Amino acid sequence: MRTKHAASKEAAINILFIMYDQLRFDYLSCAGHPHIHTPNFDRVAAMGVRFTNAYCQSPICGASRMSFYTGRYVSSHGSQWNGYPLRVGEQTMGDHLRAAGMETWLIGKTHMKADAEGMARLGLSADSIIGARQAECGFDVWVRDDGLWGEGPDGFYDEKRSPYNEYLKSQGYQASNPWQDFANAGIENGQIASGWMFDNADKPANVLEEHSETPWLTTKTLEFMAQAKGPWCAHVSYIKPHWPYIVPAPYHAMYGLEHILPAVRDEAEREDPHPVYGAFMGNRIAAAFQQEDVRQKVIPAYMGLIKQCDDQLGRILTHLEETGTLDQTMIVLTSDHGDYLGDHWLGEKDLFHAPSVKIPMIIFDPRAEADATRGTTCDALVESIDLAPTFVEAAGGAVADHILEGRSLLPWLRGEVPEWRDAAISEYDYSSTPMRDTVGVSIRDARLFMVFDGRYKLIHAEGGLPSMLFDTHNDPHEFVDLGTCPEHEAVRTTLYDHLARWGRRMSQRVTRSDAQIDAARGSSARRGILPFLKDGSEVPEELTAKFRGPAARDYTPE
Amino acid sequence: MRTKHAASKEAAINILFIMYDQLRFDYLSCAGHPHIHTPNFDRVAAMGVRFTNAYCQSPICGASRMSFYTGRYVSSHGSQWNGYPLRVGEQTMGDHLRAAGMETWLIGKTHMKADAEGMARLGLSADSIIGARQAECGFDVWVRDDGLWGEGPDGFYDEKRSPYNEYLKSQGYQASNPWQDFANAGIENGQIASGWMFDNADKPANVLEEHSETPWLTTKTLEFMAQAKGPWCAHVSYIKPHWPYIVPAPYHAMYGLEHILPAVRDEAEREDPHPVYGAFMGNRIAAAFQQEDVRQKVIPAYMGLIKQCDDQLGRILTHLEETGTLDQTMIVLTSDHGDYLGDHWLGEKDLFHAPSVKIPMIIFDPRAEADATRGTTCDALVESIDLAPTFVEAAGGAVADHILEGRSLLPWLRGEVPEWRDAAISEYDYSSTPMRDTVGVSIRDARLFMVFDGRYKLIHAEGGLPSMLFDTHNDPHEFVDLGTCPEHEAVRTTLYDHLARWGRRMSQRVTRSDAQIDAARGSSARRGILPFLKDGSEVPEELTAKFRGPAARDYTPE
Repeated sequence: MRTKHAASKEAAINILFIMYDQLRFDYLSCAGHPHIHTPNFDRVAAMGVRFTNAYCQSPICGASRMSFYTGRYVSSHGSQWNGYPLRVGEQTMGDHLRAAGMETWLIGKTHMKADAEGMARLGLSADSIIGARQAECGFDVWVRDDGLWGEGPDGFYDEKRSPYNEYLKSQGYQASNPWQDFANAGIENGQIASGWMFDNADKPANVLEEHSETPWLTTKTLEFMAQAKGPWCAHVSYIKPHWPYIVPAPYHAMYGLEHILPAVRDEAEREDPHPVYGAFMGNRIAAAFQQEDVRQKVIPAYMGLIKQCDDQLGRILTHLEETGTLDQTMIVLTSDHGDYLGDHWLGEKDLFHAPSVKIPMIIFDPRAEADATRGTTCDALVESIDLAPTFVEAAGGAVADHILEGRSLLPWLRGEVPEWRDAAISEYDYSSTPMRDTVGVSIRDARLFMVFDGRYKLIHAEGGLPSMLFDTHNDPHEFVDLGTCPEHEAVRTTLYDHLARWGRRMSQRVTRSDAQIDAARGSSARRGILPFLKDGSEVPEELTAKFRGPAARDYTPE
Repeated sequence: MRTKHAASKEAAINILFIMYDQLRFDYLSCAGHPHIHTPNFDRVAAMGVRFTNAYCQSPICGASRMSFYTGRYVSSHGSQWNGYPLRVGEQTMGDHLRAAGMETWLIGKTHMKADAEGMARLGLSADSIIGARQAECGFDVWVRDDGLWGEGPDGFYDEKRSPYNEYLKSQGYQASNPWQDFANAGIENGQIASGWMFDNADKPANVLEEHSETPWLTTKTLEFMAQAKGPWCAHVSYIKPHWPYIVPAPYHAMYGLEHILPAVRDEAEREDPHPVYGAFMGNRIAAAFQQEDVRQKVIPAYMGLIKQCDDQLGRILTHLEETGTLDQTMIVLTSDHGDYLGDHWLGEKDLFHAPSVKIPMIIFDPRAEADATRGTTCDALVESIDLAPTFVEAAGGAVADHILEGRSLLPWLRGEVPEWRDAAISEYDYSSTPMRDTVGVSIRDARLFMVFDGRYKLIHAEGGLPSMLFDTHNDPHEFVDLGTCPEHEAVRTTLYDHLARWGRRMSQRVTRSDAQIDAARGSSARRGILPFLKDGSEVPEELTAKFRGPAARDYTPE
């Protein structure tokens, strides 16, 4: 299914950068899921390219997103985990795109925590335009809602204002926290049946479907697009299908036991696992997902949430068609990480098996240059940091590759085969989790690094722990840890060499581009710095003219 | 020579952090130089500890200094070479010390280039206090003068105002650039005999000694101390004995041919050298220093400049004694890097032989806790980044070790033997030099890393080049490159492992301390985030109380 699209390379395009939180790469029909039907995702894939080997830079919301937004590895931007503030001054796609003449807007979630201390140190107020962008990860905010309005004895998890909660109130949902009492809850025996509890995942959320999170954010997106003057980039960032797993009718009942794929797990994985893997297998979320009744409640709800996302994507595509702007809009569909859903005896994300670290990545470029690849897949090793430079190039800007560590994907969309990376890197810092104690490592050592070369996946664990290694050709499900297998020592050495090279990468020379370095060479000699002269005959006379001439022998002390 | 000093640990002290630009570690009498006599350096060494194994983080002014000031490796702060701006928001000892209640002043040189683009992006003006500190590397400026007022057909190398040049004018030195015409020049046949030319290094500079750079800056220092209210840290940063090599009478004539040590070099070094070493051996400065007549002119001038520094240090010590403040003043004497002076067939610095990468490091701590170590030496592997945390601890502050990568030296001063690093790291980026073309590597690959474990010194060169390796026990002069020696493969592997660990260090998590990570653990559950609940029975009731209760079944759509 290849369609010609009229827009030329020169025409300004807009970018719709859509993220679905915790969407597994393989829970789309275009990605081969046998039961879920996602015709709108599939349609974008048919119009564009689906990247089948895309990885997030960290399988955790905050760190992963900061890599998407900065175009830099987690160790480069330093926001290693949820709620670790992104340091003030760290540049994001907003900075790069605005420099290229493209407005950059946020509609939804970022998980950004402002570096309030750093901003105060620099005298920046979140009230100013500059301060607001610093506080919002470089975006101008159309609407920001991170979606988790949990509340406990110590108050709200997220103390920001929730536009979604205010919307619910405006629609007549009477509660101090209507997200908690309605959108994130069913009803049982007249009582709140909270979406926090897996047992309630099969209940319909106590909210009209049109009032639930995903349609609400879609409406906000349509409102944005109706008024926006291009060129713009809009980061439409849905909080679903991320937990809590509960979805309104009719989506709560669309999938049943017959649609649940068996957990991808093997008894051998539990025998003498790597200490970090073992610790995660023993955490409370993993313990829950090891129970089949939890999977039976949760997975249909998760699928219902995705189906709702797909339908809402359809609303956006229809809007683009009806307004005649589909041909001017690059569409990117991706996620910040996956969800184990019981695979490998785990719940949530955090580690580096494919269900967690691999992400969906579908890009539709409306311009004629991309006609050659429409409806194809691409198995290049893609990293989430590649989007920021992709957008800069799409916006017609020059990619500041001394800052942006990713690479533009546009060559792939044009059907070229650019020189490309040999391996994808992902990182995880578990120092903020209880598993740090279980493993028994220090805060600094509670870190993991994945190096995946397309076949072998090495996971290095700091703190003197062994490595993990999977051969995804011979063991596509990643059941057999070859981390200490003597026959694979050469493979590990190669991947460790790659990791060492990556560790030495130049990630912080952000104030000086390669072009500036080239341009500045030799300039000091023409400004009188000649620390190699014996008698001056070594250089043209004009270089020494300023310090030749009659000596002013005398001076007049005052 | 051990003296008891009265000040207690609790008493606030001031810090005199004195840097001499390009001062070799071994051109002091206390460090064993047979001809130069530096009684004032020696006196501070006798009152304190001389560290005999101290290394700069990069053998080049700008990058090295940014490491001193930030307490971070070059790859961490990103200011890889002279004139690469220090990114806005990067914290320096000024930020850390001010937080500990200590003012931090600059008197002299920093080689800091402001990140004007980053400041503009954040709306910071260099006119504001915050902006001025950002522009001045975190210091409040008593006086800043970087010392190189070279001028050529394209204008001044350094376009800042030169307080020293203005001082010379005020003293009656009549010229548009009196540094160039007087302080940096002798006279020959009535003509300016510029200090830029090695042939003139034996002439007296055409300036009264008391008006030359080093006494001028000393006077500024005494003026500062006369008015300063403690606790303060003053970075007194001399531009000498850095080239141009010319010194006023009587220092120009204090040393002669009989005081010049033979060049430490070996013919074997020139046979098939490492490509990077070979390229540096072929540059113009090296070519000059390979000529004995250049050494004969330059080295006595260099020694004269050092002797003048020593005398001026005497003025400071006398002032401290006369004002009764010696017992309240920590004194640190160091340098940003050394000077080859023809050793290893090289001039200048840039590479990692001891004359270049090793630095003098003498610390006098007046407090009683340091009595045990007065007059001793310490051979721990010290890095220049250790000073910032040393100062923070001396100021009574808590060391922000998620930002500062060095380690406080105070335990060594107290006679303790702390757990310590296994190896010192230094880096060099030669992408801005002509040697990049000679070697034939890309900008990104024009980088070197030194790992020195106290015996073996490995130098890794990017770009697929071989390594260099020296065994400083069997080959103290570092003549024999074992970089490709088969028998030393295990040594290289060990040092490469160290480099790989260092490459994975967490250098950018600057917004979140270890203590904050510890304190935050478990807090989300008490704020309603419970993504592991099956039915709520897993946790105390208070954690789920907010989402239990009667369901509000109805709402009123507006």
